[in-house]
Amino acid sequence: MRIAVDALGGDNAPREVVTGTIAAARKLPDDELVLVGRPGLIEPGSDLPQNVSLRPSGDAVGMDEEPSATLRAHPDASVAVAAEMVRDGEADALFSAGNTGATVAAALLRVGRLDGCRRPAIATVLPFPSPVLLLDAGATVSCRPQDLLNFAILGGVFARRYFGLDDEARIGLVNVGEEPGKGNDLAKEAYRLMDESGIRFVGNVEGRDIGRGVADVLVTDGFTGNIVLKTAEGVAREILLMVRSAVTSGALSKLAAGVLRPRLLGVRDQVDPENYGGSFLLGVRGSVVIGHGNAHARGIENALLGISRTGAGLSENLQEVLSAHRLRSSEGRPA
Amino acid sequence: MRIAVDALGGDNAPREVVTGTIAAARKLPDDELVLVGRPGLIEPGSDLPQNVSLRPSGDAVGMDEEPSATLRAHPDASVAVAAEMVRDGEADALFSAGNTGATVAAALLRVGRLDGCRRPAIATVLPFPSPVLLLDAGATVSCRPQDLLNFAILGGVFARRYFGLDDEARIGLVNVGEEPGKGNDLAKEAYRLMDESGIRFVGNVEGRDIGRGVADVLVTDGFTGNIVLKTAEGVAREILLMVRSAVTSGALSKLAAGVLRPRLLGVRDQVDPENYGGSFLLGVRGSVVIGHGNAHARGIENALLGISRTGAGLSENLQEVLSAHRLRSSEGRPA
Repeated sequence: MRIAVDALGGDNAPREVVTGTIAAARKLPDDELVLVGRPGLIEPGSDLPQNVSLRPSGDAVGMDEEPSATLRAHPDASVAVAAEMVRDGEADALFSAGNTGATVAAALLRVGRLDGCRRPAIATVLPFPSPVLLLDAGATVSCRPQDLLNFAILGGVFARRYFGLDDEARIGLVNVGEEPGKGNDLAKEAYRLMDESGIRFVGNVEGRDIGRGVADVLVTDGFTGNIVLKTAEGVAREILLMVRSAVTSGALSKLAAGVLRPRLLGVRDQVDPENYGGSFLLGVRGSVVIGHGNAHARGIENALLGISRTGAGLSENLQEVLSAHRLRSSEGRPA
Repeated sequence: MRIAVDALGGDNAPREVVTGTIAAARKLPDDELVLVGRPGLIEPGSDLPQNVSLRPSGDAVGMDEEPSATLRAHPDASVAVAAEMVRDGEADALFSAGNTGATVAAALLRVGRLDGCRRPAIATVLPFPSPVLLLDAGATVSCRPQDLLNFAILGGVFARRYFGLDDEARIGLVNVGEEPGKGNDLAKEAYRLMDESGIRFVGNVEGRDIGRGVADVLVTDGFTGNIVLKTAEGVAREILLMVRSAVTSGALSKLAAGVLRPRLLGVRDQVDPENYGGSFLLGVRGSVVIGHGNAHARGIENALLGISRTGAGLSENLQEVLSAHRLRSSEGRPA
């Protein structure tokens, strides 16, 4: 497939993005990677792999800029040019580690939504200890119940491809209790819709059970999902710092820590978001993938490998399943 | 002060509740503890401290029972009798480790709300790494902006007592970004109210910064708060399990683990909810405190010590500050 990479997006752009893209290109000889960015991004005479090319654009949307206004004022922003490549069929996928809101806005404005999908969702893998796909991680902070059902359908299709599941993905609803009838109005109505939809719905999942393998996909609104994701990442990081500080104080412990250090680093790697590629924006016409803003070359490379593995034909697949569900639910409705 | 203890509430009741209450009573010679439960709860001739007494009641509300219906059908349930003691001035505080919904319902139905407080909030200390008071942790899953302002005011007063702060507590709003204007409608409007209220408002706090010491109090609705709290507790537990499993595999590591074991246990203790007493239901007329359902004697004891330290005169204090805020905001309003 052909992936348009926003070379200017992210805290460590363009250097780490370019390095990560080149590393990914060497592992993906059958794919093409297009670095979108300012002309002169790459030194003339640089040793680029054959499957990496350049596409000129304006600057990136800054991390603190208001996305839609900036995109209107700077229609040649790097993420917008990358999105136009997807719209025009010049690329199958778009990747950016820049301003998340700008990537979402560029995708909505330039690429457009799937039929029957009012709002998109960001799907992110929460890696520990048992990987689970969480959506929406922040694209749509105010959701309707039907949005959550759509997220469940999209997330189920995506998770099956991403995790390579043999069976249909098990879908859970993030909620404040396990019993049906728990939660706010949105959660109660989303429960009802999901329960009646024919998806493989396993019911409500409480915060304490996130990542314990009770579901493959966890559905929630973008407000709750963003906070859950960042809380989980923050707590994981803080607990590991506490462990490190506990085991490296005192002489004897320093010795022991020498033995254990590689093992603790192993745990850290297991919870490090950089090892888990990017987050897919589901519900738009094409593969649109958001990298961590502070990703380094390794994170960029992992994200691009993930796109190559998962992204080919993704949005066609999602549209097909979404349309089949809509058809089924309209047929099931009393005349 | 006088504390009514629901002796029948919780997974390990009555044994662990009674044991924990007796242990607390020995450390609180100036307080009185009343065990509310079935007659015959304590063997005749048991060696009770002088400041522990008994009050007969019916059974507990079961963990899976619907709270309000059960309380209507069984008005002599242990938590209801304890709540009546608070209502009638026979006790200053109520503690229960039973069905949380039943404790909230008994408090609302029997004890009543503070003036100007439409809905109560559960205030819980998130202990790691820097303790912060989170509210609402699940009493009110559907909030209005004014509810969140009330939670901020109540939480600020409570946190100052509980943490022994010299200055006014710093209040943050849990949100999906730091900038004003982020979030869903509830968060946006709550931000505006809190910003204009005269409280010590430090702005939005993202999930990743929860527990990093940027605020003393974190305010959110009961849906988000419950999920954040349980996610944080769940992730902390899972990461520690991952660390333990990483350091105790292989012979050399077993040796090292022997050295490090006490240190890892130290971290576990630091994140163990049982070491942090109960959660206070703020917004009702009296101190109403909710224990962890699976608490053992140590957790019960810690909760009762926390009530004694924090609870005397708490609701009068809260009412005073809440009324002063209401007066100020109504004076500030154009005629």
